[in-house]
Amino acid sequence: MTYCVGLKIDRGLVFMSDTRTNAGVDNVSVFRKMHSWAKPGERVLVLLSAGNLATTQAVISLLEERSKAPDERNPTILEAPSMYQAARLVGDTVKEVIQQSAPTGQNADAFGASFILGGQINGMEPRLFLIYPEGNFIESGEDTPFFQIGETKYGKPILVRAHEPTMSFEETVKLLLVSFDSTLKSNLSVGMPLDLLYYERDSFKIAMQKRFEQDDSYYRAISDGWSSALKTAFASLPDFMR
Amino acid sequence: MTYCVGLKIDRGLVFMSDTRTNAGVDNVSVFRKMHSWAKPGERVLVLLSAGNLATTQAVISLLEERSKAPDERNPTILEAPSMYQAARLVGDTVKEVIQQSAPTGQNADAFGASFILGGQINGMEPRLFLIYPEGNFIESGEDTPFFQIGETKYGKPILVRAHEPTMSFEETVKLLLVSFDSTLKSNLSVGMPLDLLYYERDSFKIAMQKRFEQDDSYYRAISDGWSSALKTAFASLPDFMR
Repeated sequence: MTYCVGLKIDRGLVFMSDTRTNAGVDNVSVFRKMHSWAKPGERVLVLLSAGNLATTQAVISLLEERSKAPDERNPTILEAPSMYQAARLVGDTVKEVIQQSAPTGQNADAFGASFILGGQINGMEPRLFLIYPEGNFIESGEDTPFFQIGETKYGKPILVRAHEPTMSFEETVKLLLVSFDSTLKSNLSVGMPLDLLYYERDSFKIAMQKRFEQDDSYYRAISDGWSSALKTAFASLPDFMR
Repeated sequence: MTYCVGLKIDRGLVFMSDTRTNAGVDNVSVFRKMHSWAKPGERVLVLLSAGNLATTQAVISLLEERSKAPDERNPTILEAPSMYQAARLVGDTVKEVIQQSAPTGQNADAFGASFILGGQINGMEPRLFLIYPEGNFIESGEDTPFFQIGETKYGKPILVRAHEPTMSFEETVKLLLVSFDSTLKSNLSVGMPLDLLYYERDSFKIAMQKRFEQDDSYYRAISDGWSSALKTAFASLPDFMR
């Protein structure tokens, strides 16, 4: 499977994704699930993907190709007039790829893929979308400032409880690592390394991009620290009295 | 859906289950998912159920009927010579019910149900089983001392991290309530009240049975306390440094 999160804070957008893909437990590989397009000063777009790897790679490849070859540049994600139109473009590409893979509609589910698209275009607000395999999509709001795709359940409780829109980037990375660590500990289909990307609002360039490897000292500090912090938290609660 | 946990500690067996059943979000009811049979001094058996309500009720009814009507008492769960044979009996009853519901094998998945069976029979050790819709089953071991059925993912990380076989009953109730509270906060198909049952090893009677209602003061203390304890735990970890 996969685990990806896109999260909106007042200061910008933060993205994290794992890199494990598997077709059966003995066919495991590392693939990047985070892709970005930038025209410095004008726009930044980030796309996270989960689901059938052939579908997600085809979608990324088509978006890539069309953003590079001038004669195929219409439609292209680098020319979309708004984030909404960029989300539509990704959605249409997903539909196109899935229809090509399963023209008769047979087993269309097997080719499914979901995407998180976030970014900002100059003159407009930063926006965050969740794009379904059917090609339609929803946008984040004040009450739901993050989207998860893939193996979402293990890491959700901490996101729900600890997220605050006023968080700093540094706190947000900590929150995401805790959420990813809970998922990594519970599900073999999500694996290290983890990719991180930070976009600061109104900057129109990528502020930071980093890969956390298994032996990253900050990741280890969070993973080990969270285990013992949880035990302390748990011990601080009153025992049941018969 | 449902959330049920059966957990083995050195001192005995602890069971907890929610009570919500739903067929669509506008057809929600409260049903007990915890059933027990006891012959004081001789045996105690506890069964937790998840899945299709018609299937689980039919299984419980058949087990109940056969444990009461003397002429149908063979096979009966109150006469099974071992916990292993009791698990086989439950498994066979599940198979029987599902085959009756879906004789052609069509849509057999829709009638599926899983069970956790735990208990002790005099002269033998306490044992805990997970019974699949196919009627086969597995037993807990030292490395996997608990089973979950239903909506298992949200509440798993804390069980994995905080469980110790040497825990007291009182600590175990606290752990289960934290695990249930994380699930309740994330998934509408799991709902209060919660049923608790404690069996103390070699006692051959039920030590305690309790229903936690929404306004139960201990449940509230854990639910509120865990939120703030988690925030404190989270704040205690070092922020990311760019």
